[in-house]
Amino acid sequence: MNTREIGRQIIEELMGPKYMENRDKQRNAFNSVLHDYADEVCFGRVWARKGIDRKLRSILNVAMLTALNRPAQLRSHLEGALTNGCTVDELQEILLQAAVYCGLPAAVDAFRIAEEVLRARNLLD
Amino acid sequence: MNTREIGRQIIEELMGPKYMENRDKQRNAFNSVLHDYADEVCFGRVWARKGIDRKLRSILNVAMLTALNRPAQLRSHLEGALTNGCTVDELQEILLQAAVYCGLPAAVDAFRIAEEVLRARNLLD
Amino acid sequence: MNTREIGRQIIEELMGPKYMENRDKQRNAFNSVLHDYADEVCFGRVWARKGIDRKLRSILNVAMLTALNRPAQLRSHLEGALTNGCTVDELQEILLQAAVYCGLPAAVDAFRIAEEVLRARNLLD
Amino acid sequence: MNTREIGRQIIEELMGPKYMENRDKQRNAFNSVLHDYADEVCFGRVWARKGIDRKLRSILNVAMLTALNRPAQLRSHLEGALTNGCTVDELQEILLQAAVYCGLPAAVDAFRIAEEVLRARNLLD
Amino acid sequence: MNTREIGRQIIEELMGPKYMENRDKQRNAFNSVLHDYADEVCFGRVWARKGIDRKLRSILNVAMLTALNRPAQLRSHLEGALTNGCTVDELQEILLQAAVYCGLPAAVDAFRIAEEVLRARNLLD
Amino acid sequence: MNTREIGRQIIEELMGPKYMENRDKQRNAFNSVLHDYADEVCFGRVWARKGIDRKLRSILNVAMLTALNRPAQLRSHLEGALTNGCTVDELQEILLQAAVYCGLPAAVDAFRIAEEVLRARNLLD
Repeated sequence: MNTREIGRQIIEELMGPKYMENRDKQRNAFNSVLHDYADEVCFGRVWARKGIDRKLRSILNVAMLTALNRPAQLRSHLEGALTNGCTVDELQEILLQAAVYCGLPAAVDAFRIAEEVLRARNLLD
Repeated sequence: MNTREIGRQIIEELMGPKYMENRDKQRNAFNSVLHDYADEVCFGRVWARKGIDRKLRSILNVAMLTALNRPAQLRSHLEGALTNGCTVDELQEILLQAAVYCGLPAAVDAFRIAEEVLRARNLLD
Repeated sequence: MNTREIGRQIIEELMGPKYMENRDKQRNAFNSVLHDYADEVCFGRVWARKGIDRKLRSILNVAMLTALNRPAQLRSHLEGALTNGCTVDELQEILLQAAVYCGLPAAVDAFRIAEEVLRARNLLD
Repeated sequence: MNTREIGRQIIEELMGPKYMENRDKQRNAFNSVLHDYADEVCFGRVWARKGIDRKLRSILNVAMLTALNRPAQLRSHLEGALTNGCTVDELQEILLQAAVYCGLPAAVDAFRIAEEVLRARNLLD
Repeated sequence: MNTREIGRQIIEELMGPKYMENRDKQRNAFNSVLHDYADEVCFGRVWARKGIDRKLRSILNVAMLTALNRPAQLRSHLEGALTNGCTVDELQEILLQAAVYCGLPAAVDAFRIAEEVLRARNLLD
Repeated sequence: MNTREIGRQIIEELMGPKYMENRDKQRNAFNSVLHDYADEVCFGRVWARKGIDRKLRSILNVAMLTALNRPAQLRSHLEGALTNGCTVDELQEILLQAAVYCGLPAAVDAFRIAEEVLRARNLLD
């Protein structure tokens, strides 16, 4: 497999085949450069590396996206974190630590998004 | 031990007794509220929790502080990450992933700080 | 009263009993650590302090949340600022100053949210 | 024309007469200071300057608003960029470059907004 | 007095005649547009307004500049805050509140700068 | 030439052969992943694209790096902008526009760095 195919396989493993199908339908002449960048650079080049496992890569993204204030990607990578074996208790610890370092408002926003993700998966009592 | 003592013990384990001694010397009437906040809230309340280990807490901070653009704290928590068992190869992966999500300039700054930390510990060839 | 009770009383005085009731209903096993953190650290420990009055604490939050780009919390603390005696004219000055220091786009977003808050309270002609 | 009139003329040329009419209807006692600031400082004082053309001013704003994470203003200035002669291919390049420097999540958000703007103008196949 | 003269008078009252003299010496063909912008927009137009007093304007800047991560301007406006009657105890409260909302790293950086400012004025024991 | 070689050629054209030589000396086992990322992704993949010229790419970076608060990279890309034909007057306009959108403190920091770059090239009277 070339870099692009490796990247696409990782995205599909992370987000599921339905996500991948939707994503491909939304591809057009304008956004194709970004799709290629995500496939080849983000996933094919960086996520494909060894050295840290995918669970940790997902956790890093949850931490960074909370700090960066990017709710849409945070939601996707909270999904990915659960897929990669991150537990609800671990997510709780990660986002609580974000309250201290990124500030309470960042954590409030992140917890709200995480609750929506967990509820949709019946992981919230 | 009360929360404050637990927090102070964690800081000392993370940063070393010399750091702690220096820190206590710098305490004064003005910054004492911040010292107490760090001791009791950041370390005594959050770092003291179970659920994720200290190595992961350090890694989260490296990721968040790279995103938040706070070089002085990043340096301290890169030290802490190494103390908590994070390897040089793992740091390399974490900061490379930051290049994709936080942007190349954030990663360039973080790599430079990490190189200084690693060189001071003879961990860079 | 312990720190938690003091914190909860301040939140209720700031946001009203209805907000508090809703907030308690939304508490669950996942977000309880964040609720406790807000109750005990943010409100019980910091807002409970003397030295500056609550009106100024609200104003600080309006300024910081505008800079931090956190619209949901900005809305809550605009409410709190009005409750704590901040006038419409004062809010206008605060957000205009944010235009200079945080940039015009930050101020445009903050004014829009403030207008919604003021309109709901019939404070906008 | 005075600074305010010059500024208002530039806004109208950038965003169209309909936008201007709506904007004037939304003016009230609270937001008038911000409207004046935008008219006189942003447009009358800065956009009115020579030295770089309006197309480049629009492009600068697309780049800065992507970095600053301000989607509502980004949308307006993507409109302005198209009005000022920026092509779809140029926008694609600008936002791809943002992926490298501001991080992939910033670019994903910006591409999504740009796609909505382009679709509304029938500029997306 | 025109807007520029009003602005310059406010800067001088805020920062002192020595600062003003230095500032004027550093003026050159390149930075003159920024000097004029600061004189006329920031100080002549916004700081000159009534509605909130200068002490509060200084405090707003301390809060916003801590959030915005701009240490050089933070230093200047900590000076200005003291000149405008802000006490050391008030600064302590303001920066502690920033720890909760902007995150601990932002507050650590701001306290360090504030300590340097206070020490230079013999306001720190 | 492969992507890496194309990227390295662009960096050298942008920053000069001396910069490139220094950069290669600083390459080590730790930072090599970042060097490769910059060579292949940032320059070989994105800067190498047609569609906008290099002068505009440099200008985009000046705008984004001012917004992102990354002074070290801003300095490099101000150098690059001058190399790519950006005039002093154009830089002045770009950074003044940043004052409006990113806030005055961001522009003050950027002008200071730009002045140092211009002075070193005898481009400041």
